[in-house]
Amino acid sequence: MKNNEKKIAVFPGSFDPFTRGHESIVNRALSLFDEIVIAIGANALKDGFFTLENRKQMIRDVFKGIDMVKVSHYEGLTVDFCRKNNALFLLRGIRTAADFEYERAIAQLNKAMAPEIESVMLLTTPEMTPINSTIVRDIIRNGGDASKFLPSSININNYR
Amino acid sequence: MKNNEKKIAVFPGSFDPFTRGHESIVNRALSLFDEIVIAIGANALKDGFFTLENRKQMIRDVFKGIDMVKVSHYEGLTVDFCRKNNALFLLRGIRTAADFEYERAIAQLNKAMAPEIESVMLLTTPEMTPINSTIVRDIIRNGGDASKFLPSSININNYR
Amino acid sequence: MKNNEKKIAVFPGSFDPFTRGHESIVNRALSLFDEIVIAIGANALKDGFFTLENRKQMIRDVFKGIDMVKVSHYEGLTVDFCRKNNALFLLRGIRTAADFEYERAIAQLNKAMAPEIESVMLLTTPEMTPINSTIVRDIIRNGGDASKFLPSSININNYR
Amino acid sequence: MKNNEKKIAVFPGSFDPFTRGHESIVNRALSLFDEIVIAIGANALKDGFFTLENRKQMIRDVFKGIDMVKVSHYEGLTVDFCRKNNALFLLRGIRTAADFEYERAIAQLNKAMAPEIESVMLLTTPEMTPINSTIVRDIIRNGGDASKFLPSSININNYR
Amino acid sequence: MKNNEKKIAVFPGSFDPFTRGHESIVNRALSLFDEIVIAIGANALKDGFFTLENRKQMIRDVFKGIDMVKVSHYEGLTVDFCRKNNALFLLRGIRTAADFEYERAIAQLNKAMAPEIESVMLLTTPEMTPINSTIVRDIIRNGGDASKFLPSSININNYR
Amino acid sequence: MKNNEKKIAVFPGSFDPFTRGHESIVNRALSLFDEIVIAIGANALKDGFFTLENRKQMIRDVFKGIDMVKVSHYEGLTVDFCRKNNALFLLRGIRTAADFEYERAIAQLNKAMAPEIESVMLLTTPEMTPINSTIVRDIIRNGGDASKFLPSSININNYR
Repeated sequence: MKNNEKKIAVFPGSFDPFTRGHESIVNRALSLFDEIVIAIGANALKDGFFTLENRKQMIRDVFKGIDMVKVSHYEGLTVDFCRKNNALFLLRGIRTAADFEYERAIAQLNKAMAPEIESVMLLTTPEMTPINSTIVRDIIRNGGDASKFLPSSININNYR
Repeated sequence: MKNNEKKIAVFPGSFDPFTRGHESIVNRALSLFDEIVIAIGANALKDGFFTLENRKQMIRDVFKGIDMVKVSHYEGLTVDFCRKNNALFLLRGIRTAADFEYERAIAQLNKAMAPEIESVMLLTTPEMTPINSTIVRDIIRNGGDASKFLPSSININNYR
Repeated sequence: MKNNEKKIAVFPGSFDPFTRGHESIVNRALSLFDEIVIAIGANALKDGFFTLENRKQMIRDVFKGIDMVKVSHYEGLTVDFCRKNNALFLLRGIRTAADFEYERAIAQLNKAMAPEIESVMLLTTPEMTPINSTIVRDIIRNGGDASKFLPSSININNYR
Repeated sequence: MKNNEKKIAVFPGSFDPFTRGHESIVNRALSLFDEIVIAIGANALKDGFFTLENRKQMIRDVFKGIDMVKVSHYEGLTVDFCRKNNALFLLRGIRTAADFEYERAIAQLNKAMAPEIESVMLLTTPEMTPINSTIVRDIIRNGGDASKFLPSSININNYR
Repeated sequence: MKNNEKKIAVFPGSFDPFTRGHESIVNRALSLFDEIVIAIGANALKDGFFTLENRKQMIRDVFKGIDMVKVSHYEGLTVDFCRKNNALFLLRGIRTAADFEYERAIAQLNKAMAPEIESVMLLTTPEMTPINSTIVRDIIRNGGDASKFLPSSININNYR
Repeated sequence: MKNNEKKIAVFPGSFDPFTRGHESIVNRALSLFDEIVIAIGANALKDGFFTLENRKQMIRDVFKGIDMVKVSHYEGLTVDFCRKNNALFLLRGIRTAADFEYERAIAQLNKAMAPEIESVMLLTTPEMTPINSTIVRDIIRNGGDASKFLPSSININNYR
């Protein structure tokens, strides 16, 4: 048992953009881990709506002053990024049963490739359930007001 | 942030009986928490297949020598039991999408009643996915050999 | 087309008890129909937690002053009750994908038995999603405070 | 309560092409609403199999003589189109549990952006359940006979 | 490979009563197997709506003249019954995603206990999807006409 | 009944690449059919990761020496390919509830177009559940070791 060691979790995603649902998951995970690395997968970069740099800045602004939250990005396999960061935990938020099926497949494959890394799942609150980045992008693209689906501390127009 | 405080999780269930799937969830949660209280819900007692005392003994035997795992039982609401035990986390294992729908409802109600308690979900490994206590009881009742679905360290016949 | 006729919907259920989720469905259906008959299925009476009369009174109190909402009960098939009430619509609230599978089976069978009756489904709001009567009864039985899951205008203790 | 007002529903989709399943939903909604606007989302236009004009003509031909059915198209958010058309209802057909999860997310977001608009869901009949536009396009593309999945009153070859 | 051997499948269930959906599964499996044993699980007997003998007679009447269909019943584990009958296949009909989750758990446990037995799944036709024995019993109990959900060759009143 | 006739099944897919899960389905189907035609759909060719010829060679190598397994490819509708090959069965492997919903739609449409062809579904073993070709390609693309998700008899690097 390594319970004296620092508990580091990676929270991977494309975060294009980072939503109020994502924010809620990280906030709720703060009491569970000692460090949370929010990590933007580079595969998500091509055809992105927001640039990598703007996504990172947006997330940094949301968690300004909270030292245990780091922002990073990676290429390659998620489990390799975890290992490089000494993270033994993969943090995931689940919203729906469809999410769950997908997350289970990913988690089981990651477990097969890196048995020492545990996937930990938190649920979004009911109000956040319908929010995902695809839908938020769609609202922005169609000129709608997406502010209630985004972290309240930021103005999305500053990152475009 | 209370990250210097002891991280206590309650793992509630009827555990009639405690299966290899349950064992796997607890083992995987050991690196995440400082103490895990396996708590048998008293509502599950009536019409039980194994007695409360035998279920508790069985679980104690599985985790013999692991001090951070406690075994208990409770009546009333799960969140009230958590509060009495200073547990800020509810540990749950999810196997299937159907499980997930049910667990989400329970977790959201618990959150409404006790906002300070977080439900943390771990996935069972693929081999454990089909195992639940109902099916294990059914095998035992029909004279089948359920040993490969039960913790390998115990002999189920000692608890009947 | 009979669009000048009165649009009557039956909202069937056991309502043991009537929750804030049920209330929300009826309120949202008010603009769609001319009359809504909230109908307690008699099959739900045996082993009920609240008596039939108390359930009816509770619902009447929730919709006091709203003439287009009626409260009734029935035995036998739901479609037969609809026909006796000249109702061409069956109103149903759906919360989860599991609900949906069940509701689809019921709706398709009703359609086979009474092709002129249409099942109309409304979604519960996200905050209501985890609430169902079983869970509410469980909270009450365990001495918990279920008031935030019940219509705000009533005091559940008046109906026991 | 505005029950004397005209009940207008928007039935949005890409309708590429309009299938027998879509036709069934509209026919069943005729007794519920006073006007149904079948609205082709402009986002669906790019990479479409049928042109926008052909899709509109096809739908107009299916509902020839039924004045309460209108055909239109729109760009931007669906809720904005509803408001422009004084429609308080969004009509949706649901086929499967997977559909349901998606529709729930969309409906909840629409509700957040336009609380006065209600999503109303009807079920497809069992025979229509497997039909969706993607599969119908696939059959046409592969030279198969899709006629039994399309409205019986039209010949799909007239719209290509 | 034992492909010259007789392919025997067991079709287990409570069949209380045998529905048109069950009939459809057996008829479609006739071209796949050399013998199909329809086997009523004895656990399903207690609190049954139809007696075991009436259920068996009903199924025999449905498949009168088709020698490759046998009717039987069993106690104990399904895989033990298969072995006694030299059946290497378990035939199952699936209707919904909820069915699937349950069937997968059962199939995987059976595989763990009897690796030589394969579960083979056929889909019910869309019209049969909503039919299950529970719902059919409910209709009969409430005085409704269940004939369109039962095999067309039999009169359910002859078996009560 | 044509039970003396050769039972031929088509196992269609894109197989880009053929995984250990696919291999498991074919191996389990060997006792059920007299011939299994593994058929690569030509629609899957464009944007493929492995070439058609390499995919075919890989599958041939996996089933070397097993004469009843054939490897082929086709354009157009799957049911047309079945008819050309006198195959009365379509073999499908199902992993998850999401798979099931999709497979049911496809199977029901195929049944509508070719009523004589039966879809037969086998379950993947729990260890194979998370594996699909998309995820395997993703691992290979990111430089990970996918060998435990691929048939053990082949070396994936020989086919690139």
